[in-house]
Amino acid sequence: MSDLYDAPLFRTAGHQVVDRLADHLERMQARDGRAHPALQPLAAMQDFTGPMPAAPAPDALAAVLRHVDDAIDRTMHLHHPGCMGHQVAAPMPVSALADFVAGFLNQGMAVFETGQIGVLIERQTVRWLADAVGWGAEADGMFTSGGSLGNTTALLAARNLAGDGRSWTDGVRAEAPMVVLVSEQAHYSISRAAGVLGLGQANVIGVKTDADCRMDLAALRAEADAAEARGQRVLAVVGSACTTAAGAYDPLVDIGALCRERGYWFHVDGAHGASVLLSPRYKHLAAGIALADSIVWDAHKLLSVPSLATAVLFRRGGDNYAAFRQEASYLFNEGAETAFDLGLRTLECTKRMLAFKLWLAFQVHGADALGEMVATMHDRAREFAALVAAAPGFELLLPPESNIVCFRRDGDDALQEALRARVMAAGAYYLVQTRLHGRIWLRITVMNPATARADFEGLLEALQG
Amino acid sequence: MSDLYDAPLFRTAGHQVVDRLADHLERMQARDGRAHPALQPLAAMQDFTGPMPAAPAPDALAAVLRHVDDAIDRTMHLHHPGCMGHQVAAPMPVSALADFVAGFLNQGMAVFETGQIGVLIERQTVRWLADAVGWGAEADGMFTSGGSLGNTTALLAARNLAGDGRSWTDGVRAEAPMVVLVSEQAHYSISRAAGVLGLGQANVIGVKTDADCRMDLAALRAEADAAEARGQRVLAVVGSACTTAAGAYDPLVDIGALCRERGYWFHVDGAHGASVLLSPRYKHLAAGIALADSIVWDAHKLLSVPSLATAVLFRRGGDNYAAFRQEASYLFNEGAETAFDLGLRTLECTKRMLAFKLWLAFQVHGADALGEMVATMHDRAREFAALVAAAPGFELLLPPESNIVCFRRDGDDALQEALRARVMAAGAYYLVQTRLHGRIWLRITVMNPATARADFEGLLEALQG
Repeated sequence: MSDLYDAPLFRTAGHQVVDRLADHLERMQARDGRAHPALQPLAAMQDFTGPMPAAPAPDALAAVLRHVDDAIDRTMHLHHPGCMGHQVAAPMPVSALADFVAGFLNQGMAVFETGQIGVLIERQTVRWLADAVGWGAEADGMFTSGGSLGNTTALLAARNLAGDGRSWTDGVRAEAPMVVLVSEQAHYSISRAAGVLGLGQANVIGVKTDADCRMDLAALRAEADAAEARGQRVLAVVGSACTTAAGAYDPLVDIGALCRERGYWFHVDGAHGASVLLSPRYKHLAAGIALADSIVWDAHKLLSVPSLATAVLFRRGGDNYAAFRQEASYLFNEGAETAFDLGLRTLECTKRMLAFKLWLAFQVHGADALGEMVATMHDRAREFAALVAAAPGFELLLPPESNIVCFRRDGDDALQEALRARVMAAGAYYLVQTRLHGRIWLRITVMNPATARADFEGLLEALQG
Repeated sequence: MSDLYDAPLFRTAGHQVVDRLADHLERMQARDGRAHPALQPLAAMQDFTGPMPAAPAPDALAAVLRHVDDAIDRTMHLHHPGCMGHQVAAPMPVSALADFVAGFLNQGMAVFETGQIGVLIERQTVRWLADAVGWGAEADGMFTSGGSLGNTTALLAARNLAGDGRSWTDGVRAEAPMVVLVSEQAHYSISRAAGVLGLGQANVIGVKTDADCRMDLAALRAEADAAEARGQRVLAVVGSACTTAAGAYDPLVDIGALCRERGYWFHVDGAHGASVLLSPRYKHLAAGIALADSIVWDAHKLLSVPSLATAVLFRRGGDNYAAFRQEASYLFNEGAETAFDLGLRTLECTKRMLAFKLWLAFQVHGADALGEMVATMHDRAREFAALVAAAPGFELLLPPESNIVCFRRDGDDALQEALRARVMAAGAYYLVQTRLHGRIWLRITVMNPATARADFEGLLEALQG
């Protein structure tokens, strides 16, 4: 039988994998090659349709390297400065190494006994992020597997605490009908969470946005009044920091004030934008975030760590425990220090050292450098927006608040799609498209601090011809 | 500013991290050192309480290596043959390398355009697992972040399809009251899922188990009858394959037949045990699993890949889409080949190449070797059980079906706890404890095929003195 734990093979293959990834990083930094693999028709990708291979590869090392090469070649090239599509991080190498170590060691984090150092690292990282929000010692939270699960967990805590607190045990039918108010431009995970949590997507009320794509406060107030008049309880108001499509920050200060006034749970989806809190120059964008009852913050977006690493933070740390209320005798020992048994607070039971990849980046690079990285990506987006505004035949949706820029060429929707397809075929740039105000817009997100003015000029030129 | 994307640093640090992990693996294989870090009092672990470091470490390489060394030293040593506690994998090195590559490249998998090779690899891996179940071309599924999320997703699909199918849009109050029937010894994630999904934990009915810790079929039938008589709809019956505490396989053939007869959704939580399907010698344990409507299968347990990698499989592939019903215009392009836009089927939006770590292990080692690894861990558990049965002063809970063995020394609960504490302090072995039939049992899970007879003899000796 093939030796599944062959240490010499691991050592040899490991060194070569490191070299391949380092070579790849250097090539991408030199803009050598495409920003993304060519989008092949499915019929051309028939090499992934065979049955499960029964026998080992004749040469294990060669097989590892061949498949790793293939993966490097044929995945999105996030480290290429021309890659500016979705809000997916170009991972910092130190962070990727930490993630590798966490995967290899694989310690479970549900209980302190098995987690120990991983649990302490996660709790310290949570504390750092809560400090950045401006919260005191009462705040707490945990890391979970992605922003969608994070938003779901935060709204779950809100749901369980609402009314008589019977939703968890007796089901949502034991409580009055509940609605969630959120920007009509919010990420789909909020609506999805309502579907998951048994509230029903129809009970997510999309609040109108203003010309700047920010939640309209008068509309929010009117929707809240209308819901209450219908006998519905406002379970939560969700502020986007920022929205996905346009990168707009909802007016968190005003929303927070309204929530305090009326006793609504205030959740901030800061999956993308909460990272501005680390930048003295851009933290004003998230002003008011400290008014939230709960916050979701993805480190695998603007903090450039490998996916997934989502912090869910609660202003009153105890609210975290409201999300899941349970015991498992084989796992959670009676009398244990439950603050350190993280499985009580996350949907995951098995969970690896999820915060280590962020924690190590802080330790090695320092928070100032991470904040400056976030700021740089925002600076660049403004630079691109200025180029668009100055270019004849282009229209800018909005001056960007975040590192996201929506724009279009003069012409119809079909033109935008055709232009994007042409740029994609050429391969030097990756950008995406979105629908806003009834029209299709081209859209970039600067997720790599190495993306520079020449890349923007090249992209606009490619869209011009 | 610290260079966050320093390629030479990555190359140098990467090589040294590989060597450290390879050295660690060799030490563990030689049983050199403890099977787990000493459980330190929290007061002694004050090195994780400082504020966020603002400045970079003076020597980045030294900082990376110091913290990696610390992590290696102070995490659970899953590759040590004396570590036989929870159901957490000792990752295969090739799989850990694949996971490293996936983290570094970090491509998003929500849509085919960004995922491409990762999406194809995930779909091929899903096909392999569905084939192992014995399902045909109609079956489909995806990978998600853990068994708890997997069970929740499968039950969510069942919930959304139940009755008039109004739960997702209008909330669970739009449907008749629903209950879930499951072994009283099932993993807590089933009850947790009911809490999450708005059904209410009180509507999870724990079905009595027999002396072998398997769901009692007469009790299941009686509970189903009683629920229907109360006007409740049986949303799903969940079979455990196997249970967490005792490792018992519910009678899936009989449960499946009952579900077919009555039109109940049959979900099998095969998080731990579905991997026996790869072993000709042990696949009989999961007989009947093909009758399921949905199956959860964790590759990060018996298939020894780093956490997390959970396959959720649906007998009718289309049911997968019932779990989440939504659109996001910036993401899912109209007219796209939706079978390849995996974000439509997972709670996660951003998700990395989650299946690559399993897929590469299959490619390099072959399915036969993985199946033999699973079988070996089961063989070993039987060997340990035989030693326990033959040892004076010990009691075996059950002859093990899975790779989990529960046993105890003659004496009271306090003795079991004291014995475990003593063994833990010595450090050569890691085992856990659980409560079953009103008593505390010591419990091992053989998660490392290198765990051998000498380890078992040593453990029993340590428990004897």
